Amino acid sequence: MVNYQERLNRTFGALVDPTRRAILARLEHEGSASISALAQPFAIKLPAVMKHLDVLDDAGLISRSKIGRTVTVELRPEPMREAVDWLRRYERFWSRSLDRLAAFAESKEIEATKRKGKP
Amino acid sequence: MVNYQERLNRTFGALVDPTRRAILARLEHEGSASISALAQPFAIKLPAVMKHLDVLDDAGLISRSKIGRTVTVELRPEPMREAVDWLRRYERFWSRSLDRLAAFAESKEIEATKRKGKP
Repeated sequence: MVNYQERLNRTFGALVDPTRRAILARLEHEGSASISALAQPFAIKLPAVMKHLDVLDDAGLISRSKIGRTVTVELRPEPMREAVDWLRRYERFWSRSLDRLAAFAESKEIEATKRKGKP
Repeated sequence: MVNYQERLNRTFGALVDPTRRAILARLEHEGSASISALAQPFAIKLPAVMKHLDVLDDAGLISRSKIGRTVTVELRPEPMREAVDWLRRYERFWSRSLDRLAAFAESKEIEATKRKGKP
């Protein structure tokens, strides 16, 4: 069994490449697609697309099944869940800066109201 | 200005390595730390740690400031926000499998209640 750190390595490693992200984004919309349909929008050759699919497969992010001569690729998004959970620890930093922004906007509003109140 | 895809490449690229993730996790706890303090728990040499810090710096995930002979590293988690937003699109798939799990648990409970009801 692959351990937690190794799974994160593979997930983030799969997500580094924009072509692989585009493949995942497309599967997010369509659920599944044939390899030739997936390869179609890219300027790269089919063997290059196949290599990207291998990386996604190794990371457990897709599965492939063959019926006749057509290989269908399906999305397996579960490994991304651990990646999101890892990143979520940093959320408190963003909400903190949003809090600061809200406080700033509020103080400006109070200031403006005060100014209006004066003759 | 670096575009959206390039920023995601750099963020995910920075997160691929477990040493870099450990550095970020430590900074999450402590906010900032000196380079020597950051390097201390790792079995790798200081120049290797410096290379990891360069990658994190290029991704905009840390900043470094020097006072006297001490370099202090600070966390800049903002780029991770875009990465989380990218990953969140897949959340509906997890919640869907959680829904299925909840429905299954519920049906089992109803079954058990019915069985108990019978003499």
